[in-house]
Amino acid sequence: MTIREQMLQIAREAKEASRIVAGLSSRIKNELLCGMADALEAEKESLQRQNALDLEAGRANGLSAAMLDRLELTESRIRGMADGLREVAALPDPVGEITGMWKRPNELQVGRMRIPLGVIGIIYESRPNVTADAAGLCLKSGNAVILRGGSEAIHSNTAIGAILREQLKRRNLPEAAVQVVPTTDRQAVTELLKLEEQIDLVIPRGGEGLIRFVAENSRIPVIKHYKGVCHVYVDADADFDMAERIALNAKVQRPGVCNAMETLLIHQDIAETFVPRITAALQQAGVEVRGCPVVRKFAPEVAAAGEEDWAAEYLDLILAVRVVASIDEAIDHINRYGSLHTEAIVTRDYARAQQFLRQVNSSTVVVNASTRFADGGQLGLGAEIGISTTKLHSFGPMGLEDLTTRKFIVLGEGQVRE
Amino acid sequence: MTIREQMLQIAREAKEASRIVAGLSSRIKNELLCGMADALEAEKESLQRQNALDLEAGRANGLSAAMLDRLELTESRIRGMADGLREVAALPDPVGEITGMWKRPNELQVGRMRIPLGVIGIIYESRPNVTADAAGLCLKSGNAVILRGGSEAIHSNTAIGAILREQLKRRNLPEAAVQVVPTTDRQAVTELLKLEEQIDLVIPRGGEGLIRFVAENSRIPVIKHYKGVCHVYVDADADFDMAERIALNAKVQRPGVCNAMETLLIHQDIAETFVPRITAALQQAGVEVRGCPVVRKFAPEVAAAGEEDWAAEYLDLILAVRVVASIDEAIDHINRYGSLHTEAIVTRDYARAQQFLRQVNSSTVVVNASTRFADGGQLGLGAEIGISTTKLHSFGPMGLEDLTTRKFIVLGEGQVRE
Repeated sequence: MTIREQMLQIAREAKEASRIVAGLSSRIKNELLCGMADALEAEKESLQRQNALDLEAGRANGLSAAMLDRLELTESRIRGMADGLREVAALPDPVGEITGMWKRPNELQVGRMRIPLGVIGIIYESRPNVTADAAGLCLKSGNAVILRGGSEAIHSNTAIGAILREQLKRRNLPEAAVQVVPTTDRQAVTELLKLEEQIDLVIPRGGEGLIRFVAENSRIPVIKHYKGVCHVYVDADADFDMAERIALNAKVQRPGVCNAMETLLIHQDIAETFVPRITAALQQAGVEVRGCPVVRKFAPEVAAAGEEDWAAEYLDLILAVRVVASIDEAIDHINRYGSLHTEAIVTRDYARAQQFLRQVNSSTVVVNASTRFADGGQLGLGAEIGISTTKLHSFGPMGLEDLTTRKFIVLGEGQVRE
Repeated sequence: MTIREQMLQIAREAKEASRIVAGLSSRIKNELLCGMADALEAEKESLQRQNALDLEAGRANGLSAAMLDRLELTESRIRGMADGLREVAALPDPVGEITGMWKRPNELQVGRMRIPLGVIGIIYESRPNVTADAAGLCLKSGNAVILRGGSEAIHSNTAIGAILREQLKRRNLPEAAVQVVPTTDRQAVTELLKLEEQIDLVIPRGGEGLIRFVAENSRIPVIKHYKGVCHVYVDADADFDMAERIALNAKVQRPGVCNAMETLLIHQDIAETFVPRITAALQQAGVEVRGCPVVRKFAPEVAAAGEEDWAAEYLDLILAVRVVASIDEAIDHINRYGSLHTEAIVTRDYARAQQFLRQVNSSTVVVNASTRFADGGQLGLGAEIGISTTKLHSFGPMGLEDLTTRKFIVLGEGQVRE
């Protein structure tokens, strides 16, 4: 069988399985997920033996220490995967939810009911825990899933997949509802991305290179999330203590992630007092600050920011700082350089909080809190399958609900159209 | 300027304009739409003069009588366009709606707020009224629109576009919020479809050929709707009078549209009595019936249906009829041959109505009413920009709400992440 035929068979079996998974009751899905969680913990030793093969190959191939760390399935990570599945089991089931129902003049009742998308393809990089996390979210939302992890994790992913599938089999459910692509050949990805008749959605998880590759080669809709150039705007009416606390948290608490702040905007009326204070606090926290000329006037030790700094996603302890003349200039700056990820305003002024909320159309807009809350778990979605910074289908962190769509339902008493 | 440069300029100006349109109040949008409606009626004579140029060219190019009819802007059609804009003005504004708000354990308030998609591209065929209808829906939902109609309607579309733009200009709003592509060169479409940085969504309206062309050439998300192979399933517990009324309406009332019935499924327990009755009624209404062997046993004058009939979208007074052993077999048939458009069940049995509603995941699922209600206006959406039979972003008839997406909003009091 060629790789093309192999991928087509996987996708067809997934589609067939998706019809059965779509109709499962919440109780059966929850028991399945809990059974999978127990099995992962029960079989942790065989899992770690397979994981050791990946680690060994990784060392032989010269993977960095950071990559090897991400790859490793420690006991606590296996417990983490299991707990993740149990948490998803505990979340409300979105399938079958009726999000509205209204009556027409001819007495027809019309509503919209949530249904699964069908078959989801997940293409990811080195962390093998994604295999269990993504499978849990897709199954709970009534979808079948095709998982294609990084080649460096192939033994680990295959072993996790086998444990999950065994639980489907024991319950007489279709094993094809969870499939781990068995080959590391890159052609498998390009073939999968052509199967628009079988696969409904592709979610790439990883670096910008992976996401661009998937977006450019896919005939299937893709949830995209290239980068996070997140802003905090400190308004003239901000509480300085709060602004400092939020700016430090947004930059320093975990600088390497997409919802960390990359640019701080400060209203000119407070520049003279707030700029020296916040740049000193940031520098004390180990942040390299790069400022516009006004920033440097009030904090002369700060390096000069160039045009490229306004668009930079540093993912590091570096921050661009700019003084703006007004909230309108702040919003213009965000529209020009932002990535539609997350922006925050710090202010005590009601009208400007409202203006920022309405006029900034990034996927998460925050008033008086850290950008670091832009995360499915933190926002209360329970868990997150990914983040979308394109507006179609889903925008922002995606939980179970965004793995569904809505059909119209119509309840009549014999009505026909005139 | 090359066509590529021209399209890029159109798309960039649309994106710029979309930021302003996104922030307009409902009142300003409604006044704008009503002003556009009045202007179309006031300038109907100049509009008809431009339309006459298209009709003349169409006759010279040998367009069919049906095509020429679709192309013509009669006085009543101009009034229809104007009334359509007024109706959209009267609909609720989806932008800014908050669809849910919840509190997190740290007292953060989190919600989702509707925002416009940005720039919508509409690619359509011969009816010039789409120019005004689509512009009205896109503007009301806060989007900018790029309109590319059929080459045979270029004078009419350009004239409508000019009238609409004049109303934007008079109100000091960006004219680029409504743009009619000024060239009939097909390359304009392929260039537009590459501009994923500027255009957020493409909606093709027309025949399957147009939709496939757009879907295959687009780097931008496309709302797809290939065809409607709609089913009516008459259950063993159906009221025969109701079943006959619904089946006739679904097939005969307007056979050439996508929500007309193409296959009738009948439970075997009622075949002996219902098959002769319904086939006779259909034939009397001028329908050519093609049946499975069981149908032909009870109605020997019916022609034999072949495998190709089960997948056929006749769009004509032809109907395939099949007897099934159970509701499960009916659902299997629909899953196998259907197009995810619209399916109806006729039954008096509560459990089977519920089963059909849950297990049939077409975009509109109907109990005891005609499939012909699968239409934005009939379902109460007010108006319809298109229909989606793919599940991403939107599924089924799309109204104003589906021309928006949702951002997360977070209201804090200084919270930072631990």
